[in-house]
Parts: sequence; C-alpha cells; structure tokens
Amino acid sequence: MPEATIRPAAESDVPAIQEMIRELAEFEKLSDQVTSTDADLQAALFGESSCAEALVAAEGDRPIGYALFFTNYSTFNGRPGLYLEDVYVRPAHRGTGVGKQLLKQLAAIAAERDYGRMDWSVLDWNQRAIDFYESHGASVLQEWRFVRTEREGIQRLAGQAAPSGDQP
Amino acid sequence: MPEATIRPAAESDVPAIQEMIRELAEFEKLSDQVTSTDADLQAALFGESSCAEALVAAEGDRPIGYALFFTNYSTFNGRPGLYLEDVYVRPAHRGTGVGKQLLKQLAAIAAERDYGRMDWSVLDWNQRAIDFYESHGASVLQEWRFVRTEREGIQRLAGQAAPSGDQP
Repeated sequence: MPEATIRPAAESDVPAIQEMIRELAEFEKLSDQVTSTDADLQAALFGESSCAEALVAAEGDRPIGYALFFTNYSTFNGRPGLYLEDVYVRPAHRGTGVGKQLLKQLAAIAAERDYGRMDWSVLDWNQRAIDFYESHGASVLQEWRFVRTEREGIQRLAGQAAPSGDQP
Repeated sequence: MPEATIRPAAESDVPAIQEMIRELAEFEKLSDQVTSTDADLQAALFGESSCAEALVAAEGDRPIGYALFFTNYSTFNGRPGLYLEDVYVRPAHRGTGVGKQLLKQLAAIAAERDYGRMDWSVLDWNQRAIDFYESHGASVLQEWRFVRTEREGIQRLAGQAAPSGDQP
C-alpha cells in the first residue's frame, strides 16, 4: 500500500473523524458511552473556545485514521505536555505503518513545542496496542489508575440537585 | 480546626504551591521526578500561554493544600472536562474535610462550565485516597493503564537526535 498522508484535521474532516470515533468505541467495547455529535467535535477542534487538536491520516482523499490530542501539564517536570486522547487506524489499514506515522508526527509536534512528555492510555487487554507503543519507546505505567466522576457525580459533589432530563 | 478557605491561586501563592508539589512527590515516592521550578509553575498558571489553573486551601494566611487542573476533552461524550493533575492536603490537616472542600469546589467549577466529567489518577497502593474518592462518588477504572514517553523518547520518535546537555 502507498504511504498515508498525515495532515492537521480540517473542518471538512469532522464527519469522518466522528465516524472513526464511533468505530474506535466499538473496538473498545464502549459504544454505549458515545453520545458525542459532529457539532461537539466541530466546537472542540474549531470553535471559539477550542480545547483539542487533531491529525488525519489519509489515503488519497479517504481518511483512514486520526489522532486527537490536547495540552496537559506536569507539576513534576514543570512543562506542558501532549495528551493523546485517541489514536486510531481503520482495520483494513493496520500493520501498514500508519499508526507509526501518526505517533511520529505527534512526537514532532511535542518536540517542536518543547513539551515535557507525551501521555496517553491503553486498555490492559489490548496487547497489540501495548506491544506497538512499547516498541516505539513508550512505557506502560503499572501503578497508576484512572479515577472518574461523570456529570451526575459532579452535580452531587458540587451540592446541586442532579439535573432531570425531562423537566424545564 | 476551623474550616479552611478555598480560593483560586494568586501569583503570590506560587512558591507555596511549588513547595507542596515537592511534598506530594515525596509522599508518592517520586521525588526524583521533580525538576520543576517556581518559574515553570508561574508560566503554567499565569503566563501568556497558561495551560493550567489552581485552587489553594488556606487556614488564615497559611496554605495547607492545593488542587491543580486543566481542561481535557472526551471524544466519547463530546464535552470538555476537568482533569485534576494534583490534589494535596498537608499531613497535619488530613481528616479535617479540606480534601472534600477542594473536590467540592472543583466539582462546582466543572458544573458551572458544563463539563462532561472530572478525571484524575491515583496510585494503586494509596488505599486511603481510593476510599476517599470512592466515598465521594468517583470510580476507579480498572481496565485502563497510562502510557508515557518522556523527552528523550519524543525526540527519538520524532526522528531527531536526542539533545545533548553540554553541547551548543
């Protein structure tokens, strides 16, 4: 296969990226968690208070993968960093180097911005991904666990009533 | 003990927060990872391209805890979120409700900004913290692991020579 092109996402890529987000969730067995829309992604990437950036891997005009990331900060190394929320390559294009091209481009962005590190996450059963990341010099941190509170928990913690879906 | 005051960090808090960052690292047995300076924290919180925010818990004028956070984005729920990089209460003030006050204030910020979730991380051996977070409605995600590449790995991945410390 020809080498893919890696480029910053354009506004016209939003529907294709959103489609790949759903494919990624399906692969991760987390489809029930996907409630996002094209408009959400448009706002996050290109809105007035945009909070994320994305790269698209394309073969000709056809998007075959993407990476979405934002800036984090480490109080330990004192530097901003690149947090890679998603990196995805469509099944038919795996094993062709597209994932590596995406990681390489992300690293180039992190290096150019003088970021202190790149962080992301992986499911503990996704050995193929773990092997891939480790083969490119990344480490899986065994001691750390993610902690999460969703909207309802936030409301409760904030001391407000949980919002009801069908009341004004 | 009197209830602590929770307030947004001011520029004059930078040295005290940086001191507490070192205390936190010591508690986490990660002191060797701390290379940050007051100037780094000043830039992250108050610089032109600031990338993080902080709250301070104080008893009178004395800072006794802090929380440092930034904005993340979930491609699944399509919303920005609050990523809590650090939450810390000085040992003499633990068990007095300061941690809860900090979490509550963070949740209020997340609710006010209509964020989709709050995320943070915990060491798997820190059972006291895990119990505390779970008692306030948060979930520990068992399947996910952090992946990380530090500066040298970024340079290698980007295809550049690793920078040498003592050459021009």
